[in-house]
Amino acid sequence: MTAPGAPSDSERLPGPGRMVAFVDASVAIALTLLVLPLTELVPERGASEKPALEVVTGNLPVFGSFLLSFVVIARFWVVHHRLFGHVGRLTPRLVWVNLFWVLTIVVLPFLTQFVASYGPDPVIVRSYIGVLALCSGALTAMALTMYRLGIADGDGSGPPDDFVDGVVAATVDMALAFLLVLIVPAVNYWALLLLVIDPLTVRAVSRLRRGPSRRSPARG
Amino acid sequence: MTAPGAPSDSERLPGPGRMVAFVDASVAIALTLLVLPLTELVPERGASEKPALEVVTGNLPVFGSFLLSFVVIARFWVVHHRLFGHVGRLTPRLVWVNLFWVLTIVVLPFLTQFVASYGPDPVIVRSYIGVLALCSGALTAMALTMYRLGIADGDGSGPPDDFVDGVVAATVDMALAFLLVLIVPAVNYWALLLLVIDPLTVRAVSRLRRGPSRRSPARG
Amino acid sequence: MTAPGAPSDSERLPGPGRMVAFVDASVAIALTLLVLPLTELVPERGASEKPALEVVTGNLPVFGSFLLSFVVIARFWVVHHRLFGHVGRLTPRLVWVNLFWVLTIVVLPFLTQFVASYGPDPVIVRSYIGVLALCSGALTAMALTMYRLGIADGDGSGPPDDFVDGVVAATVDMALAFLLVLIVPAVNYWALLLLVIDPLTVRAVSRLRRGPSRRSPARG
Amino acid sequence: MTAPGAPSDSERLPGPGRMVAFVDASVAIALTLLVLPLTELVPERGASEKPALEVVTGNLPVFGSFLLSFVVIARFWVVHHRLFGHVGRLTPRLVWVNLFWVLTIVVLPFLTQFVASYGPDPVIVRSYIGVLALCSGALTAMALTMYRLGIADGDGSGPPDDFVDGVVAATVDMALAFLLVLIVPAVNYWALLLLVIDPLTVRAVSRLRRGPSRRSPARG
Repeated sequence: MTAPGAPSDSERLPGPGRMVAFVDASVAIALTLLVLPLTELVPERGASEKPALEVVTGNLPVFGSFLLSFVVIARFWVVHHRLFGHVGRLTPRLVWVNLFWVLTIVVLPFLTQFVASYGPDPVIVRSYIGVLALCSGALTAMALTMYRLGIADGDGSGPPDDFVDGVVAATVDMALAFLLVLIVPAVNYWALLLLVIDPLTVRAVSRLRRGPSRRSPARG
Repeated sequence: MTAPGAPSDSERLPGPGRMVAFVDASVAIALTLLVLPLTELVPERGASEKPALEVVTGNLPVFGSFLLSFVVIARFWVVHHRLFGHVGRLTPRLVWVNLFWVLTIVVLPFLTQFVASYGPDPVIVRSYIGVLALCSGALTAMALTMYRLGIADGDGSGPPDDFVDGVVAATVDMALAFLLVLIVPAVNYWALLLLVIDPLTVRAVSRLRRGPSRRSPARG
Repeated sequence: MTAPGAPSDSERLPGPGRMVAFVDASVAIALTLLVLPLTELVPERGASEKPALEVVTGNLPVFGSFLLSFVVIARFWVVHHRLFGHVGRLTPRLVWVNLFWVLTIVVLPFLTQFVASYGPDPVIVRSYIGVLALCSGALTAMALTMYRLGIADGDGSGPPDDFVDGVVAATVDMALAFLLVLIVPAVNYWALLLLVIDPLTVRAVSRLRRGPSRRSPARG
Repeated sequence: MTAPGAPSDSERLPGPGRMVAFVDASVAIALTLLVLPLTELVPERGASEKPALEVVTGNLPVFGSFLLSFVVIARFWVVHHRLFGHVGRLTPRLVWVNLFWVLTIVVLPFLTQFVASYGPDPVIVRSYIGVLALCSGALTAMALTMYRLGIADGDGSGPPDDFVDGVVAATVDMALAFLLVLIVPAVNYWALLLLVIDPLTVRAVSRLRRGPSRRSPARG
């Protein structure tokens, strides 16, 4: 089950196209599986004495968690989409971090069902936001790897500085949200509102990465 | 979880290929998930004292709603397929309206199960046709954005005038059907037959968009 | 929900790449959904007093129908794969026959579950083989359309004569198998063994299509 | 349902792109279906008197088997990904071995559920490791076919020698693990740790394939 050892790691990997398509298929399935708990709400034919509207109003948390996770996965996909618009070439590390990223996405339909069932239970809130933080962290790890690869290859590939700042800041935000629900469980999903401080985090990250002169005009 | 702010919006996005493939994977899954309620009709092995034919004849609404939604999703996909044959480049707006369009498609297997269970219940009829109207509206929004982009870029991209007319008219038809079931619930799914007036709507839309001389010979 | 009317039909459609990718995603999902009835056989943790081997030996028809449908779908995909290696361009007709072909494939996981539950029930046998015949017929319709398009376009596209013969003969075989189970239900799934006469059907089809001189050397 | 006979086998098949995309969609679905047994653990809303943490701690084998199979499928995909970076052209044999490989992957969500339910039951352990050995064997068969094709075509395609050694060695490892659980069932899933001897197997395979001079500098 193993590919060849050390020497092959330096070997040329196939271009990123297939990797990205595989990842996208997995994300698309996770996105679509989110609807399954909704279909389970529908009573069977004949057994439907409950009015249709009550099925919905009586299960608002199920619909809420569906929408939340749909937006979350869509948002992560959009960042991944932009990020891989800057990829020059794959490395084994990028492949595996990508697969780890897929793991965090694939787990979300399961956590979403937990959210729908248990609502603001501290264990669930922490798991959900923790997985989002890992998901964001994997994107950041890939962005930083691509950035370094882009400089090493010197071919103009790799994400631009302010894109990297944005991705790093998003992970900082998510980690802060995770810390918050760890310390003050009562905050629950509202911790995600911490993302409003994103402009501040972006500025802090950009200053830390490049010193006080906020944005170097060019990277080359 | 955020991508860089304002400046990056003007940044070049990757080409439409990956976006379209992601959307297609989601639509293909939604299309295939439609079959799941049918598989639930099949009694377990051994427990099957009911003749096979009765399983089908006793559940005609389930099969009917399956076929209706299959045709609906296939039809929407065909329009999306044609539309993106005219896309020049992506914008963040196009990406997000696309993801909203995917949301309306992904929700259809759930609504289909509701239709199968409740039949011509006013709440379900309105929800189903309402979601179709939103789905059609998202296509129209994308068509209009692409049309304007095509003119702005001046590179011959963007959908041709009569295609845009057709897409706008389809949304007008769906909105009328939605209004109809809102006012006269007894019409239920037959409201979709309103689509027969499509040639009239197309002509009205084309006249409104370009004045009485029905079709300008060229767009440039 | 409608695309523009008559004039747009003559309009250039996008290339076949996206259509094929969409079809493949649907087929891949149908292929993978086949495993779901198998997963339902597994008793829940703790409730598993039955030995693992008995779960399998006591449900051989479920595994048999899984394998049969896997091979059937894989086989159809292989023919589709070869067929679309010869496509020159799409027409609205090709798009819709393709979507009908997807419908026959998407329905197979449902029929497979019926086969697993009811075994050699005449209604199920006829439905299963009937859908296979429709599936094969759709492939044949597409092959003939592409063949005519290839001649009309005169660009060397379109499937070669003996490929078309093979696809037509396969549909003839399936139609004969369907007739057989219609008349002699006791034959049940063994009717599929009728496919062994395929070399005879191919020869008959090729003679009918081109007269006694079995194979014209070139098509141009 | 059959494609044309002998002569068409020598016919040019379409390029590997579509085959690979189809395979990837199937693998992505199998990977994502792994999460379904997890979602079944979540109690319905209202019926959730059990603390959320207990749902997880009381079902560790379900989570363990999910992670094991996720890593296994991801690992196999990575090898397939690298392997098809070296494919020159498809042959009917490659297509069918690929589809058999997909079959072994598609079956894994089912076996994973068995593992979760029965734990270290000898029948399950042997089935699971046996399927992994078949999966690995299919990859090896494809690698060897491509290697021979690459030499025959003389166009520099085909996987390099040490990649082939690695793939062959992996199958030898898996076959040994399978033999081990056949003889000493008590070893159960720990048999997979046998993969640590991989460097030894790689050296043995490379010596067997090319004689004592470990690595020929070039293949051409």
